Amino acid sequence: MLEKYGHGGDLLTAAELYGENSGGFLDFSANINPLGPPPGVLALLRDAVSAITAYPDPGHRRLKALLAESLGVGTDWITVANGAAESMALLLLATAPRRVGIVEPCFSEYRQLAEQFGAEVLSVQGTLASDYRASVDEISGLLEQTDLLFLGQPNNPNGVQYPLDELRLLAQRAEDSGTVLAVDEAFTDFIPEADRQSLLPELGAYRHTVLVRSMTKFFAIPGLRLGFTAAHPELAAAMTGKQVTWSVNGLALLAGEACLQSGDGYGQETRALIAAERQLLRQGLLELGCEVPPGEANFLLLRLPAPWSAQEIQQRLGAGGILVRSCAMYPGLEPGHIRVAVKGRADNARLLREMGTLLRAGI
Amino acid sequence: MLEKYGHGGDLLTAAELYGENSGGFLDFSANINPLGPPPGVLALLRDAVSAITAYPDPGHRRLKALLAESLGVGTDWITVANGAAESMALLLLATAPRRVGIVEPCFSEYRQLAEQFGAEVLSVQGTLASDYRASVDEISGLLEQTDLLFLGQPNNPNGVQYPLDELRLLAQRAEDSGTVLAVDEAFTDFIPEADRQSLLPELGAYRHTVLVRSMTKFFAIPGLRLGFTAAHPELAAAMTGKQVTWSVNGLALLAGEACLQSGDGYGQETRALIAAERQLLRQGLLELGCEVPPGEANFLLLRLPAPWSAQEIQQRLGAGGILVRSCAMYPGLEPGHIRVAVKGRADNARLLREMGTLLRAGI
Repeated sequence: MLEKYGHGGDLLTAAELYGENSGGFLDFSANINPLGPPPGVLALLRDAVSAITAYPDPGHRRLKALLAESLGVGTDWITVANGAAESMALLLLATAPRRVGIVEPCFSEYRQLAEQFGAEVLSVQGTLASDYRASVDEISGLLEQTDLLFLGQPNNPNGVQYPLDELRLLAQRAEDSGTVLAVDEAFTDFIPEADRQSLLPELGAYRHTVLVRSMTKFFAIPGLRLGFTAAHPELAAAMTGKQVTWSVNGLALLAGEACLQSGDGYGQETRALIAAERQLLRQGLLELGCEVPPGEANFLLLRLPAPWSAQEIQQRLGAGGILVRSCAMYPGLEPGHIRVAVKGRADNARLLREMGTLLRAGI
Repeated sequence: MLEKYGHGGDLLTAAELYGENSGGFLDFSANINPLGPPPGVLALLRDAVSAITAYPDPGHRRLKALLAESLGVGTDWITVANGAAESMALLLLATAPRRVGIVEPCFSEYRQLAEQFGAEVLSVQGTLASDYRASVDEISGLLEQTDLLFLGQPNNPNGVQYPLDELRLLAQRAEDSGTVLAVDEAFTDFIPEADRQSLLPELGAYRHTVLVRSMTKFFAIPGLRLGFTAAHPELAAAMTGKQVTWSVNGLALLAGEACLQSGDGYGQETRALIAAERQLLRQGLLELGCEVPPGEANFLLLRLPAPWSAQEIQQRLGAGGILVRSCAMYPGLEPGHIRVAVKGRADNARLLREMGTLLRAGI
């Protein structure tokens, strides 16, 4: 299957399965900014390639200072990492939890990393009726039983946010129970600022809440790997203490610095594009008979009309050069669930056209 | 001090200390191939920069196949990593040793990583009389008391190898005691093939020996991070099982593939250059009154003539734009020990000239 390694965006497996050149797929299985990196970043990296003959800064000093300034926290709150996945691994290593809590369906790395580092995983499960959210009471109960809890905000694969007042309650419960609450904000940058629900502005009030951010999705640099966390300096120091020296490569650091300094036009353009195209794509999918629960991120979870399965449509679309993410393996979802990224107008239209042709023709 | 993060090659700290542009230092503190990357690799990376908008292959499939072919082992013996430092971290995570053995003086990451992951570190110590090697008996004793033992081959910071017959004895003892013997071959590629002492050709005989290799030093790509290990498939699978998804970035994978496919001319040229320049540099340092114990790698450990300290010469050379590695903090070494990389003729000559001026003028 396309998710051989548990994720979307695997162009090499796609080429093995569908026999096409790995550069040639239209990839809706990974949720990357369709605008590509901010203007000038690729050119800057080309100019900087010869600098790979020197070691990266093991202290990530420049990027850390820029992140701290941009987020309005002290530099000692920031831990730069080799992708958000490494951030999560560092959290697990730093907190050495006996039990980890997750809210299904969610990003598969929460469970995988927790088990990889020897923790027992406890979960609660959202349902369609609640747009795949769990209730504050359910999550609070999980916080009390666990040492570390991952919460997607917006959650992957469905793209829903928890409202700020619920987050506050959860962060307070985490303080009370001494549980670390890891709020995964990997996709938060795609949400219009007015709609974004984040504890960032009040993070200083919590010693047990850590915000996990990715720079690879919004800035379209997943090949380079770059993420970071914002957390109380004590927790940040514990995470840094578990990090391998030079874990973040030099071009990633440089790209991160350039992305942060690229001005706000790119961010606004991205959010405007995603908001508009998300709406159109959702409408098109509904018209094809798909069930599309609400969400706000740069991807859509949808259930295909019966009798279509994720496997079937993934295979047929893949043969035509389009990749989508099967969500059939997520606890709480069904064989007909897939996830698609929100891309630019023409690409989204092609997806709708090809899905329409397949769905109308029938299995 | 320059080794703020425990290592050489820290151009940013150098700029903070010596006030010079971070691009402008002549860096003898990191042991990187003075030829730079193989011909064509930088150009290929420039062309590939736009591919960072896609995820790297989480299975490292192409590079793994090339490494297996080049080393003459099965692909299931190879674990590709985000630098040799990550390889060592994965070994620690996979074997979860209670006790780790090291032979001082050695690469500081052995101790640091072991302690980082909660192991107790036991050590034996080489002395000047034995060229800073420990005896087979001492190391065997350490193998019996530990669960994982790191051995540099050639050892950093002094560049000596253990002869193959001693390595065989140690690998056999490791089998007997169930201890994992990690032979760190990060610099082995710099040693002429005829002189290289490596268990690689007979690795199939050992389930407990792992060879740790770096691609960043020999191929001059430290900014990208790339290393790998060769080990029995059971140990390799345990290491891969602890690795964070997408830990190795896409440009590192691509560079690694290109380096392996660049032909053998570059390797031969590198080894010839290092062999010739090492000899000349050593001779020059001896003529300046330095003590230079034997070694074979692309770096030299030396003790400055009294009353010079590493700190003093590092500071004075740094002010003039030249970086050397203080080795004063290595257990078993003295305040006057430094390490310098072997670079090209003109650079080595400049180092000798400036050191000569300083040493002759006196403190």
